[in-house]
This record gives sequence, C-alpha cells and structure tokens, in this order.
Amino acid sequence: MTGMVYLVGSGPGDPELLTVKARRLIDEADVVLHDKLPGPEILESIPEEKREDVGKRAGGEWTPQEYTNRRLVELAEDGQTVVRLKGGDPFVFGRGGEEAEHLAANDIPFEYVPGVTSAIAGAGVAGIPVTHRDHTSSVSFVTGHEDPTKDESAIGWTALANTGGTLVVLMGVGKLPLYTDELLAAGMDSDTPVALVERATWPDQRVATGTLDTIVDVRDEADIEPPAITVIGDVAATRARVREFLVSGHEDAGTEDEDR
Amino acid sequence: MTGMVYLVGSGPGDPELLTVKARRLIDEADVVLHDKLPGPEILESIPEEKREDVGKRAGGEWTPQEYTNRRLVELAEDGQTVVRLKGGDPFVFGRGGEEAEHLAANDIPFEYVPGVTSAIAGAGVAGIPVTHRDHTSSVSFVTGHEDPTKDESAIGWTALANTGGTLVVLMGVGKLPLYTDELLAAGMDSDTPVALVERATWPDQRVATGTLDTIVDVRDEADIEPPAITVIGDVAATRARVREFLVSGHEDAGTEDEDR
Repeated sequence: MTGMVYLVGSGPGDPELLTVKARRLIDEADVVLHDKLPGPEILESIPEEKREDVGKRAGGEWTPQEYTNRRLVELAEDGQTVVRLKGGDPFVFGRGGEEAEHLAANDIPFEYVPGVTSAIAGAGVAGIPVTHRDHTSSVSFVTGHEDPTKDESAIGWTALANTGGTLVVLMGVGKLPLYTDELLAAGMDSDTPVALVERATWPDQRVATGTLDTIVDVRDEADIEPPAITVIGDVAATRARVREFLVSGHEDAGTEDEDR
Repeated sequence: MTGMVYLVGSGPGDPELLTVKARRLIDEADVVLHDKLPGPEILESIPEEKREDVGKRAGGEWTPQEYTNRRLVELAEDGQTVVRLKGGDPFVFGRGGEEAEHLAANDIPFEYVPGVTSAIAGAGVAGIPVTHRDHTSSVSFVTGHEDPTKDESAIGWTALANTGGTLVVLMGVGKLPLYTDELLAAGMDSDTPVALVERATWPDQRVATGTLDTIVDVRDEADIEPPAITVIGDVAATRARVREFLVSGHEDAGTEDEDR
C-alpha cells in the first residue's frame, strides 16, 4: 500500500498560525520532513522521533532538493503518511511545485495544504496592509534569493516598479542594496516608505522602517538579519498611523528617525 | 473598560483552513462581524446568537463600510471582544487596512490575525503553484473588482504583463474579457495558460482551464461565477502534470480541450 504525502504550509512561525488542518496532519503523520523555516516553536511542538530535518546539515551545507524528492517517494512507497512541512505556504518560493511534480511523476498521491504566507502576515503584524484601497490596486511578491544558476535579469524590477503596487521581497535582506538601486533607477520615488520585518510572528520579531533611500542604512544600524521580508510602497506608512494601538508588533528595532 | 477588536482572516472557506488562533478567537468572541465571504461552512460553525452580518442586506444592497467601522468602535467601547471575520486575509483586498486605521483613530486596541489567502490557496488546491523556480520569480495579486470611484487606469496591466511573473486576479470573473484584452495588447502570449478556480476549497469548488485566448469562452461554457480567482501564467500548466495525483481538486468544470 502506497502512503500519502501532504505538502503542508506552517505559516510564518507562530504555532497558533498553523491551520487547524496542518496541526491535525502533523499530529497524525508518521514522519514530518522539515527544514528550519517553520521556526523553533512549531518544530518543538512535534515529537522528535517523527521529525526528519532536510534543511541545513552539519557543516553548513544544504540537503540537495533531489534528496528530499527521493526521500518523499521512498517514505510514501513504504506506506508512510508523510507531512512535508514548509515555512509559510508550500507554493510560495518554497519549491513545493517541484515536489508536487516529482510526486506525480512517481505515482504518489499527494495533497497540498496551504499556509499563511509571511509575505502577507509579516507585513500585517507590523501594522502594514499589503493592499489598501487608497494606495494600491496590486501587490507583488518576489524572492531576493534567486536560484544562483538563473540569469539575474529574470526579476523584472523595472516592470515591478511600474506596477505602482506594493512590493514584498522575501529573503531579501542581503540583496537590499541591489534592488533598492534597481527600483530607484526605474524611477521609483526615493521617499517611498519601506519596512523590514525580521522573524515575523516569532517571539523575537523585529521591525525597522525607512524609505527607499535610507533603508540600507536602517538595516545596517538595526542589524536586521534573515529571515526577513521587505515591504516597499505607500502602505508601509500605515504602520506609523496604527502602531500605538497594535496589540503585538508595535516595538521598533530601528527607524530612519532617531527622535521617534 | 474598552474591549478589543481582532481583524481575523477566515482563509478560503474550508473550516479546517482556519488558523488555530482564528478558531480560538471566534470561539471566545462576544460578537463576530462578518459578510458572506468566509463561506457557508465556517459561518455555520459559529453560534447564530453571536453573529452579526455586515455584508449584503435584504434588497441586495451592501452595508456601507462606514457602518461597519462605526459598529466595530461601538462594540469595543461597550467592552465587547469583537472578531471582525474576513474572507481570506484581512489585509488582501479586504478593506482591513481601512478598519485598522479607523480603530487606531478611535483609540481602540486591535490585533491583526492573518489568514490563508485564496489568491495562493485557490491556485494551489487546483494543482497550481503560484511560483515555480522553472517558470517565474514573482507573483502579483490584483483585484478585478476595483473601487468604482477610482480611475480604471489605476491597475497597470501593461506593467503587470511585463513582470514576467504569475498574475492572480481576485474577484475577476466579470471583467475577464477586459483584462485578458489588456494583457494581450501588452504583448503577453495568447497561449499563456490560464485557470479559473471557483469557490476554492468550498465543497462545490470548480476549476476550468484554457489560455489567454480561450479563457473567456471556457468561462462562458462552464458558467464560472464569483467568487473565483483567475491564475495567469506558465505555472497554470502545472495542473495538467499533477492533476491525476491530486487527492482533492482534480475534477474539471471545463477546459479548452473537449477531449480531455
């Protein structure tokens, strides 16, 4: 009897932001394959004997995607019920699409279980709605951590700037200087509000704010590190208007304004 | 004692896709303000005596946003614990940003509780990853149901076409002919795969697929109606490769290919 693979999104990191279904499937699974992205609190809530880490290995190397693909098939063929747990949503820059195709190509039944994406939730908990009727009709998500084998120009920063919508960059702390330059060169206003949200919804979440012009300095002064999202657009200014009344996420790690 | 308002996302409609936190807050709330978008199954799971419908009223008119804003403040000032339940995520085309600003302006403490957005989940349950390393480095969400008081040109379809990324249009069934024309005029390939997902994750979910050229006919033949999302981009073709092994969401309501 072939088992079953669930491609499950863990959400941004707060265990209460797991879906009811994700929680149930994790509890019922024989094996949970995961990396570090679901965050410490969620991983600690899973009995160690059914966890299998396919993220960074000793020595700092990453487990190749091919290994994870092969392992999913192997476990399912062995009749196991497998949860492949991924940070955020499995189909948002998570290589879940590749895993789904690999499972189908190997005749393994699977189900996709969506999760709360940090691209939206990470902004939201900082008091930033990614869309807002007064400011924007679209929001675009882009990865700052592109496949190194791919041509850099695959990301159309100019077109993204021209949408006039909110931009959210995932895994974009390191390349912040690169794409803020690209967006400025594309004609985006240097005063455009920008927010960095580090470890959104984790107990040690931090938020830093600035503009397209100042955000690299803000990042350096506040020492913002991955994982974090970058929110670019007028909506990022909403935070200042609502921050005081936010029940969580109101503390600032750094802003361009020293007086605040 | 002032109460508290939770702006809570319900997810796409399956009650198991509520977050653990949303489920708890709904169960603990004194009042749940909602419209029809969370879907029948979630609404039926809430005791009727604490539900307050601020969606479509008798006669087909919408409750004005101003009424909802006022009611949230009124209930909180009365000391109530209020859940403002919104389909998908509160900050994705849900006017949650406006509600947050209104609450802050009236000194009402609030918390944003993210939900699974149908823009991602609706595609995913149909076997379509909104991003895929082989096809796209970005995904953009746009509303097909714009504020009628706003200049139509606020949506930059040409720029969106030029991003080269996946496009997901929410509430975009009615205006499908309009924006497919705009995207074709912007130079997008007429063979670009397109999928329509109607009532994603609801018991009567339906999926129909075609191309930028054929999707309007597919919609008409399959009689796709709101609420639905439109997924435009190479990733939409992933469905054909994985469909047979999808545990749910594999049935087709209509495709351009009659033989399938």
